[in-house]
Amino acid sequence: MKTRDRILHTTLELFNLCGEPNVTTIDIANEMDISPGNLYYHFRNKDEIIFEIFVMFESSISDVLDTPQTIDLDMVDYWMYIHMIFEKIWEYRFFYRDIVSILERNEKLQKRFNRIIDKKNLVSKSILTNMTELGSVSLNTQQIESIATNMVITGTYWLNFLQMRNIGKTLPEEDLGKGVYQVMSLIVPYLPDESKDALEEVAASYL
Amino acid sequence: MKTRDRILHTTLELFNLCGEPNVTTIDIANEMDISPGNLYYHFRNKDEIIFEIFVMFESSISDVLDTPQTIDLDMVDYWMYIHMIFEKIWEYRFFYRDIVSILERNEKLQKRFNRIIDKKNLVSKSILTNMTELGSVSLNTQQIESIATNMVITGTYWLNFLQMRNIGKTLPEEDLGKGVYQVMSLIVPYLPDESKDALEEVAASYL
Repeated sequence: MKTRDRILHTTLELFNLCGEPNVTTIDIANEMDISPGNLYYHFRNKDEIIFEIFVMFESSISDVLDTPQTIDLDMVDYWMYIHMIFEKIWEYRFFYRDIVSILERNEKLQKRFNRIIDKKNLVSKSILTNMTELGSVSLNTQQIESIATNMVITGTYWLNFLQMRNIGKTLPEEDLGKGVYQVMSLIVPYLPDESKDALEEVAASYL
Repeated sequence: MKTRDRILHTTLELFNLCGEPNVTTIDIANEMDISPGNLYYHFRNKDEIIFEIFVMFESSISDVLDTPQTIDLDMVDYWMYIHMIFEKIWEYRFFYRDIVSILERNEKLQKRFNRIIDKKNLVSKSILTNMTELGSVSLNTQQIESIATNMVITGTYWLNFLQMRNIGKTLPEEDLGKGVYQVMSLIVPYLPDESKDALEEVAASYL
């Protein structure tokens, strides 16, 4: 691996483990056993590294978010799909731990990160619209809007919530499933009984 | 006002305005036009100030959270009650902006802040249980558990979500009402039609 890529991967690991505010460029250089000068040759400061890592995240989560949700999916498909989004967030979870502080330092990142949130919102709405058009649920525009917002909030803050409840502990990746369940539970009351049962079955096998 | 109290109030204002990570004890002393030495005479460091502000927040929000929810309330009452909780969060919103980073630096605060989250969870569950016992809704234990968790997540992260969507802008306090709506919308699908209409009416007059 090239030094530049090693810097990005080491930083991502340290950020996810310790939180971005607790990691300096010196820590990164020390962890890699290179001189700070060598690190600065590749990146002028920590924010430049953060931006490059964001570009990796953006490309990785967009692959999932850009997949159209227009066919008739069953509860297992939805579960897997939302789980995939959570996995991408998990890989870059440091962003979600200190989101406001990280974004306010970098204007480019503000817009592009919020474009990801816009996409999450669009995907949630298109899932709900699609379910309505297929007759699986019956939702009006206002309901779709409000459920989608709650889906985005729970989907965005689930890991922050878990971390707040377990300060100082390393989160187990298995807890992502509980987040998927919380997001899907927002649609449950609108589902017909057979879909509710199907969802409980998926949940039981994943939780 | 005594210097000690003035320090607490100035700090709270600066934290809410700029975010806790962006405010130093020197900034606080400068804003108050006192010497850093005078500030250190009252508080040894920033974390001591944060702890004292937390104690104020804890007492203020506990007044609301400790009010029992056992009588038959209508949608307007619930709206007002959740709005009151949001107002307390709003007054001390800097905690919610950088929650994980603030808590990980202070063990005492970790436990006590999480006790507030526990209380929010208990209050949500007791509202839902009470509504079920009165026959307004029909929810089983698992449903109550999962709706309460979503209520706590939306109730905890609404301001963080708004701030992330509006980096660098001052949030208008009016947006609290939208947060109340998002929390209440979690119960809507379980409500009988007349309560749904009543809620939409309250929402229309507050949003």
